[in-house]
Amino acid sequence: MPFTNLKTMRNPVCEVFKIQYPIVQAGMVWCSGWELAAASARAGILGVIGSGSMYPDVLRTHIRRCKQSGVSHFAVNVPLLYPDIEEQMKVILEESVPIVITSAGSPGKYTPMLRAEGCTVAHVVSSARFAEKAEAAGVDAIICEGFEAGGHNGREETTTICLVPEVRQATSKPLLAAGGIGSGRAMLAAMALGADGVQIGSRFVASAESSAHAHFKQAVVQAGEGATVLTLKELAPVRLMRNGFYRDVQAAYQRGADAAELRDLLGRGRAKRGMFEGDMEQGELEIGQVASQFKKVQPVAEIVTELLEEYEAARKSLRPL
Amino acid sequence: MPFTNLKTMRNPVCEVFKIQYPIVQAGMVWCSGWELAAASARAGILGVIGSGSMYPDVLRTHIRRCKQSGVSHFAVNVPLLYPDIEEQMKVILEESVPIVITSAGSPGKYTPMLRAEGCTVAHVVSSARFAEKAEAAGVDAIICEGFEAGGHNGREETTTICLVPEVRQATSKPLLAAGGIGSGRAMLAAMALGADGVQIGSRFVASAESSAHAHFKQAVVQAGEGATVLTLKELAPVRLMRNGFYRDVQAAYQRGADAAELRDLLGRGRAKRGMFEGDMEQGELEIGQVASQFKKVQPVAEIVTELLEEYEAARKSLRPL
Repeated sequence: MPFTNLKTMRNPVCEVFKIQYPIVQAGMVWCSGWELAAASARAGILGVIGSGSMYPDVLRTHIRRCKQSGVSHFAVNVPLLYPDIEEQMKVILEESVPIVITSAGSPGKYTPMLRAEGCTVAHVVSSARFAEKAEAAGVDAIICEGFEAGGHNGREETTTICLVPEVRQATSKPLLAAGGIGSGRAMLAAMALGADGVQIGSRFVASAESSAHAHFKQAVVQAGEGATVLTLKELAPVRLMRNGFYRDVQAAYQRGADAAELRDLLGRGRAKRGMFEGDMEQGELEIGQVASQFKKVQPVAEIVTELLEEYEAARKSLRPL
Repeated sequence: MPFTNLKTMRNPVCEVFKIQYPIVQAGMVWCSGWELAAASARAGILGVIGSGSMYPDVLRTHIRRCKQSGVSHFAVNVPLLYPDIEEQMKVILEESVPIVITSAGSPGKYTPMLRAEGCTVAHVVSSARFAEKAEAAGVDAIICEGFEAGGHNGREETTTICLVPEVRQATSKPLLAAGGIGSGRAMLAAMALGADGVQIGSRFVASAESSAHAHFKQAVVQAGEGATVLTLKELAPVRLMRNGFYRDVQAAYQRGADAAELRDLLGRGRAKRGMFEGDMEQGELEIGQVASQFKKVQPVAEIVTELLEEYEAARKSLRPL
């Protein structure tokens, strides 16, 4: 189980992504536009534009704005099951995006093509089996995401504390842990489990620079224990906040709704309506369990400083048994 | 967030339970009789007799055999919702059990009584809210158990990496993390999150001294990723292995079975049939997600040595960022 490369003392995640700290700001639908990616890059972590909520021309605009702001080293996250995928990839290559993080699909098709064009490629997995497939497809790094993560999620329901050791056994690639990580303590826990770095989503939803609606940011920092639930498993499992829409989903389950009825209920545009337009009752509000742990909206730079300071304080406090 | 007491350098869990290492061997139905508790105590951790699968006279026999083997410092775990609870408590007090771990119920009724009789009391919780109630009831220590744990489980589905920081915020009592912990690395992760110690179940099911049937021990060490699932949420959520019985449960859900039908399907004695009698197809096999991580049945002493060595190696390998 390789940890930090002791020979060079360089962290493998920092090396592969060419960043200062082994932290990736997750690409998140409706929340991670160019402002968030640029702020993250300036804070020394990997900034990511989430293309999942963008038409190809919108993605192109975000990539260009990020560069115009003076930040050219960033990543784009691409959920591989989206219909516009070919167009998205075209934009990414035309705009010379240096790093691509793929998720929600098979990495076999696009990884070789992206790498041949000079991109660094990471893939998000929910199991060791998928990590092996990703490594076989040639990815440069692997992000394993546990059951507690917000948004779309694996069917095995393996949690971060169980998933990281499994994936660490399965691959020698630089490994990032995701799901349940919003503090320096949780970062340290992920490293203890064998990760080389972390991907953090929810906490950056509640950053000043995220494109989430102000209502959603407030809901996130006010979320308490048990505020989220993994549901809609018949479609694609997704972790979201319990609100009016979720209560409608529950009612549908209680009357024995099938997948088609659930799909009708979900409809189109619900994620945008919630996270981007601020409808807290009828929107779909994707967020992780960890949302209950942070209490205020903060600038990205402040979040990163806190993460680093807390990591180091916790590391120094660990005692022999 | 108090960590190890720096003034004395003594670990709070070791102090409250009067043990050498801050590890509790979980009380588990059909798996943790006096042999396991005695072996755990001899290895320097807290050995626990699980009374959940014992009639009061059987519990008394296990307590006496443990003492006859030369081990008088151990605990009994008592699920508070069981029908024989008054009788169990009577046996525990008559036999002068030094430590009681309560679970699955409210600690308000029995904690003051047990403490008045000189018992040390710990309570198992699945949320910060329940931790606050346990502290108010006067418990000496709190064990917080995440979604990934085997057996009966909280309704909030909060995972260990999210639960420990929440509970650490809510209480200053000695805190143990449970769920997903079967290695020294996971122990270290739990400490990084703010726990003072850990409770470990699944790995001790697969110990030489556990009373689990040999078939069940083999099934545990052969379990792969995704081998367990949290189900029967309409009755009491329980994590178990996917086998013939679980497929019957799935079929019942698919035909829209209600709680009464599920209760009939579960019937009586299914846990004994599986874990104690070795029926791998129709028995109920309670085990945690972490089962996929260990590959052989080992003596308790060897498991504890491995946990301690791995913890220390991992601790030393953690680098500044």
